[in-house]
Amino acid sequence: MKKIKVGVAGYGTIGQRLADGVAMQGDMELVGVADLAPTLAIQALRERDMIGANGVKYDLYLVEGADKAQFDQLDIPVAGSFEDLIGKVDIMLDSAPGGVGAKNKVLYEKMGRKAVFQGGEKNAVADVFFHGYANYEKGLGANYLKLTSCNTTGLIRAVDALDRAVGVSKVAITIIRRVADPGDYHRGLTNALQIDKAPSHQAVDLMTIMPHVEATGILVHTPVTHGHIITVLASGRDGKKITREQALACFEAHPRIRVVSIDEGFKGNASLFKYARDLGNRRGDMYEIGLWKDSIVESGNDIMFAINIPQESVTIPETMDAIRAAMEMQPDRESGTSATNGYLGIGKFKKH
Amino acid sequence: MKKIKVGVAGYGTIGQRLADGVAMQGDMELVGVADLAPTLAIQALRERDMIGANGVKYDLYLVEGADKAQFDQLDIPVAGSFEDLIGKVDIMLDSAPGGVGAKNKVLYEKMGRKAVFQGGEKNAVADVFFHGYANYEKGLGANYLKLTSCNTTGLIRAVDALDRAVGVSKVAITIIRRVADPGDYHRGLTNALQIDKAPSHQAVDLMTIMPHVEATGILVHTPVTHGHIITVLASGRDGKKITREQALACFEAHPRIRVVSIDEGFKGNASLFKYARDLGNRRGDMYEIGLWKDSIVESGNDIMFAINIPQESVTIPETMDAIRAAMEMQPDRESGTSATNGYLGIGKFKKH
Amino acid sequence: MKKIKVGVAGYGTIGQRLADGVAMQGDMELVGVADLAPTLAIQALRERDMIGANGVKYDLYLVEGADKAQFDQLDIPVAGSFEDLIGKVDIMLDSAPGGVGAKNKVLYEKMGRKAVFQGGEKNAVADVFFHGYANYEKGLGANYLKLTSCNTTGLIRAVDALDRAVGVSKVAITIIRRVADPGDYHRGLTNALQIDKAPSHQAVDLMTIMPHVEATGILVHTPVTHGHIITVLASGRDGKKITREQALACFEAHPRIRVVSIDEGFKGNASLFKYARDLGNRRGDMYEIGLWKDSIVESGNDIMFAINIPQESVTIPETMDAIRAAMEMQPDRESGTSATNGYLGIGKFKKH
Amino acid sequence: MKKIKVGVAGYGTIGQRLADGVAMQGDMELVGVADLAPTLAIQALRERDMIGANGVKYDLYLVEGADKAQFDQLDIPVAGSFEDLIGKVDIMLDSAPGGVGAKNKVLYEKMGRKAVFQGGEKNAVADVFFHGYANYEKGLGANYLKLTSCNTTGLIRAVDALDRAVGVSKVAITIIRRVADPGDYHRGLTNALQIDKAPSHQAVDLMTIMPHVEATGILVHTPVTHGHIITVLASGRDGKKITREQALACFEAHPRIRVVSIDEGFKGNASLFKYARDLGNRRGDMYEIGLWKDSIVESGNDIMFAINIPQESVTIPETMDAIRAAMEMQPDRESGTSATNGYLGIGKFKKH
Repeated sequence: MKKIKVGVAGYGTIGQRLADGVAMQGDMELVGVADLAPTLAIQALRERDMIGANGVKYDLYLVEGADKAQFDQLDIPVAGSFEDLIGKVDIMLDSAPGGVGAKNKVLYEKMGRKAVFQGGEKNAVADVFFHGYANYEKGLGANYLKLTSCNTTGLIRAVDALDRAVGVSKVAITIIRRVADPGDYHRGLTNALQIDKAPSHQAVDLMTIMPHVEATGILVHTPVTHGHIITVLASGRDGKKITREQALACFEAHPRIRVVSIDEGFKGNASLFKYARDLGNRRGDMYEIGLWKDSIVESGNDIMFAINIPQESVTIPETMDAIRAAMEMQPDRESGTSATNGYLGIGKFKKH
Repeated sequence: MKKIKVGVAGYGTIGQRLADGVAMQGDMELVGVADLAPTLAIQALRERDMIGANGVKYDLYLVEGADKAQFDQLDIPVAGSFEDLIGKVDIMLDSAPGGVGAKNKVLYEKMGRKAVFQGGEKNAVADVFFHGYANYEKGLGANYLKLTSCNTTGLIRAVDALDRAVGVSKVAITIIRRVADPGDYHRGLTNALQIDKAPSHQAVDLMTIMPHVEATGILVHTPVTHGHIITVLASGRDGKKITREQALACFEAHPRIRVVSIDEGFKGNASLFKYARDLGNRRGDMYEIGLWKDSIVESGNDIMFAINIPQESVTIPETMDAIRAAMEMQPDRESGTSATNGYLGIGKFKKH
Repeated sequence: MKKIKVGVAGYGTIGQRLADGVAMQGDMELVGVADLAPTLAIQALRERDMIGANGVKYDLYLVEGADKAQFDQLDIPVAGSFEDLIGKVDIMLDSAPGGVGAKNKVLYEKMGRKAVFQGGEKNAVADVFFHGYANYEKGLGANYLKLTSCNTTGLIRAVDALDRAVGVSKVAITIIRRVADPGDYHRGLTNALQIDKAPSHQAVDLMTIMPHVEATGILVHTPVTHGHIITVLASGRDGKKITREQALACFEAHPRIRVVSIDEGFKGNASLFKYARDLGNRRGDMYEIGLWKDSIVESGNDIMFAINIPQESVTIPETMDAIRAAMEMQPDRESGTSATNGYLGIGKFKKH
Repeated sequence: MKKIKVGVAGYGTIGQRLADGVAMQGDMELVGVADLAPTLAIQALRERDMIGANGVKYDLYLVEGADKAQFDQLDIPVAGSFEDLIGKVDIMLDSAPGGVGAKNKVLYEKMGRKAVFQGGEKNAVADVFFHGYANYEKGLGANYLKLTSCNTTGLIRAVDALDRAVGVSKVAITIIRRVADPGDYHRGLTNALQIDKAPSHQAVDLMTIMPHVEATGILVHTPVTHGHIITVLASGRDGKKITREQALACFEAHPRIRVVSIDEGFKGNASLFKYARDLGNRRGDMYEIGLWKDSIVESGNDIMFAINIPQESVTIPETMDAIRAAMEMQPDRESGTSATNGYLGIGKFKKH
């Protein structure tokens, strides 16, 4: 089988994980990653002799404006230019800083390459606003796809699961947002909750992906780094009741939802981060969202529950799905997401 | 007019503020406060020559088990025993640690004195579970009342206002809880969100006070100290729509609700704490809950909004209301809460 | 006695407290405060009918570029222009944002008015870099003085006290810095310590004020809001030993140093903030630095100890001292600082 | 070569990492790990089919009091009892909760097995208080060794390096302590610094290991999770000056010290945690302490600098050293620590 050739633009928090994700797909080949400066992420790659996940070598390409002398000085090998990388791939994953992806797209178009953009870009950059479980088929053969952001990706996993099982007409969400990633000194909040104007963009984005659902919500930033928590109040279609049992059943059946409980010791977002480290997962990452079994409560006919979003890694599986859809590697949602899950080891724990 | 004589048991975070609250009521007299040990709160009172709010002298009485020698050594004047205090008052405010109030009640009953307990006690300690705005009349002439907890007190202010204006049948809440008060080293959470089993007790308590409303909710602890934020999704009676305008109007009319906006600079719970300090409020406290105008959004026929609960001081006005009801100082909700508001300076800002 | 007329430029965190400080000095008159925009601090003043500390009315003057219509819309009374204010005063306290003070100075010079600048300005703005206890006499009659920053002000209190008592030749400090004030959403750090390049500017500043002492130090930012903690290692002159008893004695004798202990319940910076609130201090402020008795340890001939800096209010007393020196209200350190302490109620607790 | 057989008692934060460390030593065999309950750490191991670091299977043994039915219910395979494990090993690494190690020692003695205890046990539990670099030879052939705690281990690395290079007579330290590990909900501090009584035990412990050095220090807890920062002021022997260049040279030569700089992007403890994750290190761990090049400053004849202690993993290399010393696998410090470093991949980055 010929492997799909993939490049990654931007080797930051998401880009590193996208590269790892591709390196783990047996039917894809990571051609290389591109960046501008010898950041600590790239110095870390150098320290490991450019070997990334799964023993794969990550070749480094430089985008326009990069100063190669800086890389030489740090003894970081450079494989070529950004155009060189694009020329060698079937599809680019663009995780450049917000706004840069739109500029990169000009290159992708000129060179006739497909691309998947991350949530930081405007929707207009892409033909399809994509989610592996909610609208895989829309991405089939598309040239330019944009992924939902981390919160929206995880949220849609749960709402889509519920919708397919019992029908959802309306959701109201409260996002308790982690304000920065571990080690991110650019953002920060100290002893304060910060509220955004409602409705949150995540609710609006959900409606773009799932137009038959009415969504609104409020977002509050909190001074923590290990995962967002979202509470969701979902109403059934035509006022139909959604029971706790129905909700739990569909969550437990979903490969990318990890149903946990406080009694087991999952006390909050930090427990899930710790568990991912205890699993020995690379970077202490987790691909699944957490869903607290003991948070599921009925509110009249509606159902309420809380999920945990591992912000750094949650979009990686859906981005792999996006490659599969764009390159028509698998014809439908079921086969596409299954292939991704298999290579990433997602859902194995469900057997227990 | 003869002033109602009031004593306070327990001079901790709440007790200090209850004493201040009573000292500010023109128709009440603070007879004294009782405690067990020469805590920092009492040492601070000593440093101020036992002068509290409004220039009132706070006499200190010792509960059973207190070691008077410790007080003598620190040169802290003692006015008598707990029984001495009870004997001199018409009504006790009990803010002893959770569970101690139930024991104190034996004394109150023996000595024929009324009492108002704080939220930490079990409901069974009291005849009436009380909220100044939601059920003032139930408290009229009652001997033993228990206040709602801080979150529930603030939450009910908003839900009761909405209910009286447009009718509410159901609420689903998400409590983003501050985990400790400033300077509380006994509690603490570091870089973690912590979730409780649903439903939250605040939702359950709301139903006890407002039995015609169905309530549920999820509570998440966050590592901050300056106020809880609660998001509320409220459904109208018989499926009737509640509009943004209706909600805003009833919140703006409520003396104990401070409607604020992000654009003014109220970015979160810490902004409200800072504003209370900028107001020069004693201890940097605020009696009103905050309600973000720009958080109010419609969700189908339901209305969603976010409130801020100043946990240390929010129950003080409703406790003053409880004294008024128990002592039948004012015959109804309107006159009772108005008297409290007048003495505490609540709602004056509404004029602007 | 004719009162010295004082104006305050910039009504932010420091400016509010400077105005309060002046309002409490029996021999000074607060003519007014100046600012650019109707900030929350000014809206809070408006809500209190422009009444500040000590029952004093704070007249508001607008600096150049202010939009008076914004103030009118919020019903905030305006007393005149910045020049109007300057024209009415003997001396200005400038707590404008860093850099603006240097521009304001042009006006002060033009109008022949003295001024005291805060730590955010460059040293060159002033004739004297001033500390009430360390170099009061240098400020006598000076036209332009600059205060030390909050950390340096508190640090010098302790080091100067030790130096006068036993002689200090060298200090090495570690500043454990609070990263933002309560309610400051512009700064922030989440689950991270952040280190600055050494030596810290506070060590360098100390040497400017106390040139006979060699100082260096390392500063680490921490995600808290209630006071910096500094550990100080001080060496005696000519290698002479400083004993724990000597150090403790001179700290206990200092009016602006509050010697506390862990056993009393002062567990950290937040305990001191809580204690200031329990004292009923306006804004929950404290003028004294804290010094932990149980942190004082001998290191060979050197002495090591830890102090707590209440960053929002610590410079207020020394700024009052600066007015006294510049206006020659008192002829020397002893009488100048005593006058300030008396009006601010500092050191009264020492009697106990 | 016959491999040394090692068991690990207690599979918590340290125990997991000890097991990983042993699994990576080519001349050791991890016989198994022992614990009491099916904690999340053990459930994580189960989820990975009991495969730990380096592809090694971790057999699980149950200590007395364990309820095997709980393990069966979770489908967790059990290899035997604690005694079974002890019987199969040459040496035990005991990372049971503080105090339990002393009880376990009775078993070790009875069964004639050596053991290495972690810092939580009292010194009396062991014959030798051990540090791989500072006193390897003392551990040679010893039966019971106790490791220094995380802070002390990292601190001694730096002080011992300096001492061997230029001679150290005295150190004064300020420990800016992370208060909990990521995901540890048992400890916590919210918006507060907390000070301990001086001197810190780490200073006292340093003197036990390096009796020719006088040490004291102050410890302040901070609400963060990713590594302690310690500032060290070191004085040379006989008053001899230590220069910045001397200090830097000896730190750069040390395999377990990673010299970093703020300019490279290492802004604080969280940068080092992030870098370890970016390296792809298992659990995001780092074995080296960080040392900021730009924190090194001279203070008269003394030298001051700041180090970062990755609290979860820093003691692992020195514990491997302890096995080597106790089992006399290598005859001296140089060969013992080199063997550990080689297997753990420590110091490789020094080449660049």
